[in-house]
Amino acid sequence: MSEFSLIYTHFKHLTAQHPNTLLGIGDDCAVSQIPPNHQLVSCVDTLVAGRHFPFSTSAYAIGYKSVAVNLSDLASMGATPYAILLGLSLPTELVTDENWIIEFTQGIADICKRFNVDLIGGDTTKSDILTISVTALGFVPNGQAITRRGAKVGDIVCVSGEIGSASFALKQILDKEKIDCRGVSHTPNMAKEEVPLQQALDLPFPQVELGQKLRGFANSMIDISDGLGQDLGHILTASNVGAVIDLAKIPCHSLLQTLPNAEKWQYILNGGDDYQLCFTLSTANFEQFNQSHPNQVFAIGEIVAEKGLKLLYDEKPVNFTIQGFQHF
Amino acid sequence: MSEFSLIYTHFKHLTAQHPNTLLGIGDDCAVSQIPPNHQLVSCVDTLVAGRHFPFSTSAYAIGYKSVAVNLSDLASMGATPYAILLGLSLPTELVTDENWIIEFTQGIADICKRFNVDLIGGDTTKSDILTISVTALGFVPNGQAITRRGAKVGDIVCVSGEIGSASFALKQILDKEKIDCRGVSHTPNMAKEEVPLQQALDLPFPQVELGQKLRGFANSMIDISDGLGQDLGHILTASNVGAVIDLAKIPCHSLLQTLPNAEKWQYILNGGDDYQLCFTLSTANFEQFNQSHPNQVFAIGEIVAEKGLKLLYDEKPVNFTIQGFQHF
Repeated sequence: MSEFSLIYTHFKHLTAQHPNTLLGIGDDCAVSQIPPNHQLVSCVDTLVAGRHFPFSTSAYAIGYKSVAVNLSDLASMGATPYAILLGLSLPTELVTDENWIIEFTQGIADICKRFNVDLIGGDTTKSDILTISVTALGFVPNGQAITRRGAKVGDIVCVSGEIGSASFALKQILDKEKIDCRGVSHTPNMAKEEVPLQQALDLPFPQVELGQKLRGFANSMIDISDGLGQDLGHILTASNVGAVIDLAKIPCHSLLQTLPNAEKWQYILNGGDDYQLCFTLSTANFEQFNQSHPNQVFAIGEIVAEKGLKLLYDEKPVNFTIQGFQHF
Repeated sequence: MSEFSLIYTHFKHLTAQHPNTLLGIGDDCAVSQIPPNHQLVSCVDTLVAGRHFPFSTSAYAIGYKSVAVNLSDLASMGATPYAILLGLSLPTELVTDENWIIEFTQGIADICKRFNVDLIGGDTTKSDILTISVTALGFVPNGQAITRRGAKVGDIVCVSGEIGSASFALKQILDKEKIDCRGVSHTPNMAKEEVPLQQALDLPFPQVELGQKLRGFANSMIDISDGLGQDLGHILTASNVGAVIDLAKIPCHSLLQTLPNAEKWQYILNGGDDYQLCFTLSTANFEQFNQSHPNQVFAIGEIVAEKGLKLLYDEKPVNFTIQGFQHF
């Protein structure tokens, strides 16, 4: 099967659906119109099988998640998603597995439709390792992108939802994942109460709407992909400030609440794959935003002048080593 | 080494160099200003070690070529290159090989500087197979992108330079490439007269300037990556026309001229990796362009109403199977 027919057979219905796409997949390049008074926001994220998702992950979830993690990056800038370009390296056995391709495409299609995202470019090639590199493009009104650099002393540090669910689910899956004698991985059966956590891992919901609402409110923002501790650390470094975080205030799923503190904090601070937003707001903006959008943001601490990340529990300092996802 | 430090140590000097880049690598996304009255042109190409380049290829050439092939796609739309996003999957032994990383980065830096291209996004991750996925962005004045769809009956079919050099060089390299007992590949010594051909393979020069000059002249355009026969076929299909090509008129290197016709045509029509442009112009535009830009375009045939690609040699029809690079 040629690159041409793979893109055309399975992905053609996903392209040129957006009014800003003048030319979609099928030529050497796509051509797009940027809305007046808007800037282009772009990012790339690569997912490698066995590294960014367990081998037992469904084709649907792989497709869905490879787009979701990029939309989460756009969300963290306050951008409106527009389109993706898909660089796909596929082992031969997947190319010839039409069910796999159909489910993978459906996962991409579903999240693209949910967020009005167009597929405008693609390249598919053979490789021994399934690798998906997605570039996402979005728009933001001129000068309104929210960066990591703007946190100010006195800002309230917030997150957009429960943290730690995905890494907790991943641990359960990897503990149960079975590789049979032919080297084939089998999907483990999750306990009933763990299913919502597996959803957080496989089908993360990028906080696109919230990110856009925070334009004009948040001073700084990042999405939590490598662990809250490490990612908040990026805001602190870029903004040249420190933070004090109250561990009891970090929202997490009831299953994590039952764990011993040290184990719970490991998932919450170092786990990663959350795709929630972490951001800082002045106290005035926090109160105003909270009134108009109740229960959407969760205060977990404060930005301070002294550099570094201080953790408190029961008002006492906690010693905990921050080490998020290492790409190497 | 973390993703963060790899991007920062080796790639930071390549970012935010372009006046249209408001925010380069180092945040969740880049932010870019599109020039007034211009549209965005975008594409993605993925290179896999051992598939798109021999294992013996130098780190410099791998970096250079992974950008060049994308700039060639922008050139084929008549676009002005602006920026790239780099999705990089690296085996551990390369991440820890600082010389390799420095040479690879230098290859990227050199071609980016040559074409005033900014690095605005990156993601690096570990993988057993070296895989480089580059998304390229460019600008084109509103409505002036040159597509595959516009070829008209009577148009002259042209190419921008010698065809077949890269695939001829690749054949010589693969014939000579030695894998030692540890599975390590060694760079073969090319004969002196083959060196320019290896340059065409390793360091292709994207026809960016010519592509821009052809705006307002060419009715259709594509870059030759998978073989002239296959790629011209894409223009014919998209434009719903046919073509008659005179094989003697296709420019090629003197080393290829000495080969038997059938072997020469194999490299020229099916070889690929040329990164020359193939385009069609009305006879009036061809004459006008040729006068103002002598010796830059080479007429090889004509667009006709009857579908399909007809090949002539000495005014006689030639039977030859067109089968370009197959991605699977």
